Amino acid sequence: MSKFKVSIIGATGYVGAELVRGFVAHPDFEIKDLTSRSFAGKAFSDVYPVFRGVCDIVLSDKDPSEVGKESDLVITALPHGVSSATVPVLLETGVRVIDHSGDFRYKDLATYEKSYKLEHPHPELLEEAVYGLPEFYRDELGTARLVANPGCYPTCSLIALAPFLKNNLIKKDTIIIDAVSGVSGAGRKADLAYAFCEEDDSFKPYGVVGHRHTTEISEKCSFLAGGKSGDITVTFTPHLAPFKRGMLNTIYVRPSEDFKDVSAQTINGIYQDFYKDEQFVRVLPEGTMPDVKAVAGSNYIEVNGVYDADTGMIKLFAAQDNLGKGAALQAIQAANVMFGLPEETGLKDMVRGV
Amino acid sequence: MSKFKVSIIGATGYVGAELVRGFVAHPDFEIKDLTSRSFAGKAFSDVYPVFRGVCDIVLSDKDPSEVGKESDLVITALPHGVSSATVPVLLETGVRVIDHSGDFRYKDLATYEKSYKLEHPHPELLEEAVYGLPEFYRDELGTARLVANPGCYPTCSLIALAPFLKNNLIKKDTIIIDAVSGVSGAGRKADLAYAFCEEDDSFKPYGVVGHRHTTEISEKCSFLAGGKSGDITVTFTPHLAPFKRGMLNTIYVRPSEDFKDVSAQTINGIYQDFYKDEQFVRVLPEGTMPDVKAVAGSNYIEVNGVYDADTGMIKLFAAQDNLGKGAALQAIQAANVMFGLPEETGLKDMVRGV
Amino acid sequence: MSKFKVSIIGATGYVGAELVRGFVAHPDFEIKDLTSRSFAGKAFSDVYPVFRGVCDIVLSDKDPSEVGKESDLVITALPHGVSSATVPVLLETGVRVIDHSGDFRYKDLATYEKSYKLEHPHPELLEEAVYGLPEFYRDELGTARLVANPGCYPTCSLIALAPFLKNNLIKKDTIIIDAVSGVSGAGRKADLAYAFCEEDDSFKPYGVVGHRHTTEISEKCSFLAGGKSGDITVTFTPHLAPFKRGMLNTIYVRPSEDFKDVSAQTINGIYQDFYKDEQFVRVLPEGTMPDVKAVAGSNYIEVNGVYDADTGMIKLFAAQDNLGKGAALQAIQAANVMFGLPEETGLKDMVRGV
Amino acid sequence: MSKFKVSIIGATGYVGAELVRGFVAHPDFEIKDLTSRSFAGKAFSDVYPVFRGVCDIVLSDKDPSEVGKESDLVITALPHGVSSATVPVLLETGVRVIDHSGDFRYKDLATYEKSYKLEHPHPELLEEAVYGLPEFYRDELGTARLVANPGCYPTCSLIALAPFLKNNLIKKDTIIIDAVSGVSGAGRKADLAYAFCEEDDSFKPYGVVGHRHTTEISEKCSFLAGGKSGDITVTFTPHLAPFKRGMLNTIYVRPSEDFKDVSAQTINGIYQDFYKDEQFVRVLPEGTMPDVKAVAGSNYIEVNGVYDADTGMIKLFAAQDNLGKGAALQAIQAANVMFGLPEETGLKDMVRGV
Repeated sequence: MSKFKVSIIGATGYVGAELVRGFVAHPDFEIKDLTSRSFAGKAFSDVYPVFRGVCDIVLSDKDPSEVGKESDLVITALPHGVSSATVPVLLETGVRVIDHSGDFRYKDLATYEKSYKLEHPHPELLEEAVYGLPEFYRDELGTARLVANPGCYPTCSLIALAPFLKNNLIKKDTIIIDAVSGVSGAGRKADLAYAFCEEDDSFKPYGVVGHRHTTEISEKCSFLAGGKSGDITVTFTPHLAPFKRGMLNTIYVRPSEDFKDVSAQTINGIYQDFYKDEQFVRVLPEGTMPDVKAVAGSNYIEVNGVYDADTGMIKLFAAQDNLGKGAALQAIQAANVMFGLPEETGLKDMVRGV
Repeated sequence: MSKFKVSIIGATGYVGAELVRGFVAHPDFEIKDLTSRSFAGKAFSDVYPVFRGVCDIVLSDKDPSEVGKESDLVITALPHGVSSATVPVLLETGVRVIDHSGDFRYKDLATYEKSYKLEHPHPELLEEAVYGLPEFYRDELGTARLVANPGCYPTCSLIALAPFLKNNLIKKDTIIIDAVSGVSGAGRKADLAYAFCEEDDSFKPYGVVGHRHTTEISEKCSFLAGGKSGDITVTFTPHLAPFKRGMLNTIYVRPSEDFKDVSAQTINGIYQDFYKDEQFVRVLPEGTMPDVKAVAGSNYIEVNGVYDADTGMIKLFAAQDNLGKGAALQAIQAANVMFGLPEETGLKDMVRGV
Repeated sequence: MSKFKVSIIGATGYVGAELVRGFVAHPDFEIKDLTSRSFAGKAFSDVYPVFRGVCDIVLSDKDPSEVGKESDLVITALPHGVSSATVPVLLETGVRVIDHSGDFRYKDLATYEKSYKLEHPHPELLEEAVYGLPEFYRDELGTARLVANPGCYPTCSLIALAPFLKNNLIKKDTIIIDAVSGVSGAGRKADLAYAFCEEDDSFKPYGVVGHRHTTEISEKCSFLAGGKSGDITVTFTPHLAPFKRGMLNTIYVRPSEDFKDVSAQTINGIYQDFYKDEQFVRVLPEGTMPDVKAVAGSNYIEVNGVYDADTGMIKLFAAQDNLGKGAALQAIQAANVMFGLPEETGLKDMVRGV
Repeated sequence: MSKFKVSIIGATGYVGAELVRGFVAHPDFEIKDLTSRSFAGKAFSDVYPVFRGVCDIVLSDKDPSEVGKESDLVITALPHGVSSATVPVLLETGVRVIDHSGDFRYKDLATYEKSYKLEHPHPELLEEAVYGLPEFYRDELGTARLVANPGCYPTCSLIALAPFLKNNLIKKDTIIIDAVSGVSGAGRKADLAYAFCEEDDSFKPYGVVGHRHTTEISEKCSFLAGGKSGDITVTFTPHLAPFKRGMLNTIYVRPSEDFKDVSAQTINGIYQDFYKDEQFVRVLPEGTMPDVKAVAGSNYIEVNGVYDADTGMIKLFAAQDNLGKGAALQAIQAANVMFGLPEETGLKDMVRGV
C-alpha cells in the first residue's frame, strides 16, 4: 500500500513540530509539504535541530491550493482568523483537512464570533465540520471533509466529564474546571513573558475570566448532555506551570439525583465502563490519580476521580500532553480514523520514558 | 539592646533551614541552639552548605528543657505527635514557644484527633495556643506563651478568604480551594517520589480527599465567619508542582446576598480596604493576578480576585512561599510581634530577585 | 518473519525502562521477560506508569538460566560485580547477551580490577566480549555472543575523538575531557543527593579524580590510536547538571604535527568525512555546536569542533542522551547489528520534539 | 550617619534588579535614582513584581549629569559602547562610578578595541579605572573615582587562579577554563533563544572561540602573575545551562617546577592560606567541590582543587552566582570598600536557602 500524503500548513510552531514528530514515525502517512511564511527556504531541521537527519524537508511558502492538490490530507496549524480563510481554499481542491484553530470548532456561530471577536467568513462550514475528538465523534470522522481539532483544555475536560454528562450523573450548573498547562501551550515566540528566567519557578493563573476555551468546553458539554449550545456554561480557570509539555484538569462537580451511591469506587467504575474500548484513555486504578509526567510526549490521557463525602463534591482529574492528546497527536489519531487505519497506528508506543 | 535568644528544635528540615536564613539576618534575634537528632555534632553548614560562613553553629542534641532555659524563644520544627510531647517540656522552663506542627493549631480536640489520628497528650494547651497568623491574631500574639504556626495551605487560603468571610460576603457552603505547592513542602528526605527524575516535568494532585489541612482551614474559616469549629467545611485539593518553593491557591466561592454589585473591581476594593495596613499582604492591582515567582523567598503573600458573571462564581487567588509566609518567615513575623518588635523587622527586604 | 525474543534482567532502573521504551516500538523484537528482584510480581507499568497500556508485562524473578533459554537476546542492566557472575550463566544457555555494566568492557584485566576494585570471576570472557560501539566494532558485533555496552561518557568522548585518534591528528598526551551529565545517569534510587530540592538549580563536578570511565575511555582511545591498553591516559572530569537526560563532552586536545592547516573548517571536514556513512552521528554544520536538547530521547549523537588559534587548542564537542546513545538505545543499535537487521530499525524516528 | 545615595543607570536589566535587591537591604546606602530608557514613568516594581512594596521607585529617564549631581555613587548597567560615552559625563559631576560593562576593564587599549570591535572614546580613563575585584585591588578601591566591575567569568576564574599565578605555581601557557553559566547571564530580553521551551533541558557551548571574556581573563592573569597585558593567553569555553543564576568554572592547569608536592591537600592548603582573610571566598574542605546551588543568590564564591597524578593535571573549581559575586553583589562589595564601610555590610547574610 502506498502511503497517504499529508501536508502541514504552518509547520514551524510547536504543534507543527509535534505533527512532524508523529508523521515521520507513522507507517501509513508520508509528509509531502511543510509550509512556513517565516522560514520558507530553510530546512525544517534548521528550525528544529532535533530533527536533523529525521526530517530535513525544506519549508516552502506554496499556496494552499497547490498544497491541497498534492496531498491526501492537509493539516493547518494557523492562527484563528487565518484558518477560516485558508481552509475553504484547501477544501476546494478536494483535499481533506484537519484544522488546529478555533475557527471550525463551534456549531453556534454567535458563540464563536463572541468568543473570538471575529466575523466568520464561512459560517456554512461550521455545521459540516466534525469536532475531532475520536472518542465521541468517531463515526463522523470516517467521512469528514473538514475536522476541527479540539482545543487542548476542552479535550482534557471533555474526556473527564463525558461519562457523567452522557448519563446525567452530575448537576450541569456546578461544573468548575481548574486547569494547568505547560509553557508550550503559549506557542513558539520571542516573548519576554515566556523567557526561561521569567517562567522557571513561576506558577500563575491567566485568562481568569473569559478564556476562549470556556465557550468551547461549554458547547461540547451541552452536546454530551444531549442538549444544545448554550445549555451548559462552565467555570474555567487556566494556569501556567513551569514545564514544557503537559496539562492537568481538576474538575469539581456535584452529583445529580440520578447518581446513587457516589464514591471513588463507583466513579472509577463508571470510567472503566465508559472507556473500556478506548485505547488512549487510561482509566487509572481506584486511588491512583493522573500525573502530567505519565502522559507527556504521548497521545494518552489519564482520568480518575474521587468523592468528598464531607462536602458532597465529586472531584475528577484528567492529565494529557497539551501538544499530544491536546493537539497534534490527537490530530493523527483522527487522521487514522479518517483514512480507515487502525486508530492507534503510529501512536500506541510513543511515550517519553524517563 | 541585647538580642533575643532563639533556638530551633529540629533545625535540619527545610523549615528549620529557612528559620536559620531568617534569623541570621535578623537584627534583634540571635540563634542560640540548633538541635537535630540525626546530625548532632555536625555544623549546620555541613548539612546546608549554602550557609558556610553564614551559620556554622554545631548542631546539638540537647534536651528541650535545657534548650528552653537558655533561650527567650524556642521554635519547634518537629513532626506532629512529637511536638505535642516536646512543647509542654519547653513551656515548663518558662520559655515562649512557636510550634510548626499541627499539634496545637486546633481549638476542637475531636477535629484534631480525627485529622491526625492521634490522641493529644496535652489537650489543655489547645485553648491557650494562639494561631500564629499575625494578620488576624496580632493582639493575642503579644502575650502568647505558645504559638501554633499555621499550615502553609491554611495561611494561603485564609488570607484570601478572610475579608469575605468576616463580612459575610460569600456563601459558606460553596468554598472550593484548589491548591498547588512546590516540592519543598514534602520535606527533606530520601524518597524516590521526590527524586529529581521523578518530579521534574510532573504535576499531580495528592491527598485528594481528607488532607489534614482541610480541617484546619475549615475550623479557621468558621472562626473568621464568626462561628464555631464545624460550621464550615471546605473542599480542598492540593497538587504538587515542579518547583522548589511556592504555593498558589485558586478559590471558587459564590457571593452571598449581602455582596451587592460583585465585580473584579469590588473584590479588589474589598481586599484593598481590608489589608490596607498589612505590610506582607500585597493586594495586586485590579486585573493582575498572583504569581508564585513574585513571592518565593519572601514573607509576602499576594491576593486578588475576579468575578465570572456568566456562572456567578467568584475566583480568589493567593500566592505565597510555602516555606516563607507559609511556614518559617511567618513564624519570624509572629516572633516580632511576640517580642514587641516592628512586625517587618528582618523580613521587609528579603526577596529573591531574578 | 517472527520477531526475535529479547529479555531484560534488571528491568526497573532507568536504563531498563529506556530499553523497554525502545523495544515496545521495535518492529523486529518482542519483549519476553522483564526481571526485577525488587518489583517481581508487579506490572512493569506499575513501576513506570508512563507505560500503562504500552507495556504491562508482569516483572518476574526468574533465574537467568531460565530467561536465557526462552530468549534470543538477553540484556543485563545490573550493577558491576553482579553482571560478571550472571552473564556466564546466560551464555551457557546459548543465548546472546548485551551487558550494561563495566564488567566486560575492558580488554586489560588489571585495569578493570584496579578501576572497579573487584576480582573478575571470568577474565576469560574479556577477550571475547565485543565493545558495543557499532561505529567502530560493527563487524565483530555481527557474530558476537557477548557485547559489553559502552559507558555513557566513553561513548560520547570516543565518537568525538575517534577521527583524530585514528588518523594521528592529535597529541595523545593532552586529551582533556570535561563532561556534563543529566541526573538520570545516577540511576533510580531514593537518595537525598538526587532529590528535586537538592538537584534543581545545582551544577557541580563529582568524581573529580579517578572516575571509572576514565580508564575505559583511556583504553579505547589507545585502541583507536592503534596502540594497546595503557598507551593513552586521558584527563576526565564529570559534572552533574539539572536536567533528567542528556550529556555534553567538551574536549581539549592539541593538534599533532600530522594535522596541517588546523581550523574549524578542516575539523568539520574530518568529521564529515569520517562519519559520512553513519546514521546516528550528526556532524553539525561548521559553526554550529552540539546541544543536549537536540538529542535527548534519541539515539543520535552530535559532534563538531573548533580551533583556537590564539592558544593552539582544538576544542571538540559531542552531545548525546546518556540513556539513549549513551546506554539503552545504543544497545538496541547493537542488537540490530547482531541480528542482521538494518542498523536504524526502530531508532531512526525516535526523537523527543519540543 | 546619613546614608550614601546610590543611583543606577540602566536599572531594569537583571544586573540592575540585583543591585536594587542588594541596596534596599543595605543599612548604609539608599537608592536615589533608577533610570531606564524603556520603562521610564513606570514603577520599578511594575517591571519586577517581586519588589512590590519593597522598591516602588518610579523609573526616570534623567540625564546622567543630573543623576550624578544628586548621588554619592552611580552604578551604570549599560551595554558596552554606551558606558564609555556615559561614564565620563558622570565623572564630570564629581560623582564616583562603578561601571558594569567591559568598557573600562582593560589596561591595554588595543586589546579592548580588538575584543569589543569599538574605538574607545576615552582611552585616558583606562589607566585610572580600578578593576573592581576587592580581593586583589582593595587598596585602589578606597580612593577610586571609577571602578570597572569585572566580568562574571573573569571573577570566577581569577579567584580560582590567583593563588597559583601569584606564587608562580602553574605553567602559564596551559590554562584551560571550561565555564558554565545560568541563563540570566544572557540578560533580560525577548529572544526565542532564551525562551523557556528552548532553554529547559538544554545544555550547550556558545562563543566557543573569541568570547570577549577571554581577553579580560588573560590580561588580569598576566597582571596576577606579575607581568604585563599579553603575557598570558588562556583557553576559555563558556556553556549555557538550564538554571537562572549561577556559574561554575572548571580549570585545567599544569604545575610549574616551583610547585613541589602537588596534591589535593597542598592545593587546598594554598587556597586556605591565600584567602584566609577573605569573607566571601569560601575555600571548601579538602575533597568537597563547589556547587552552584550553594552560592546562588549570594556574594559568596567557592573554590577548591585536586591533582590528577595520572596525567599531571591540576583541576581547579570555582562556583559563584553570575549576578551575585559575578556582577551586582560584587559591585556592592566594592562600593562598601569605596565608602569606607566594613566590606561585608549588607552582604554577609544574603543567601538563598533551600
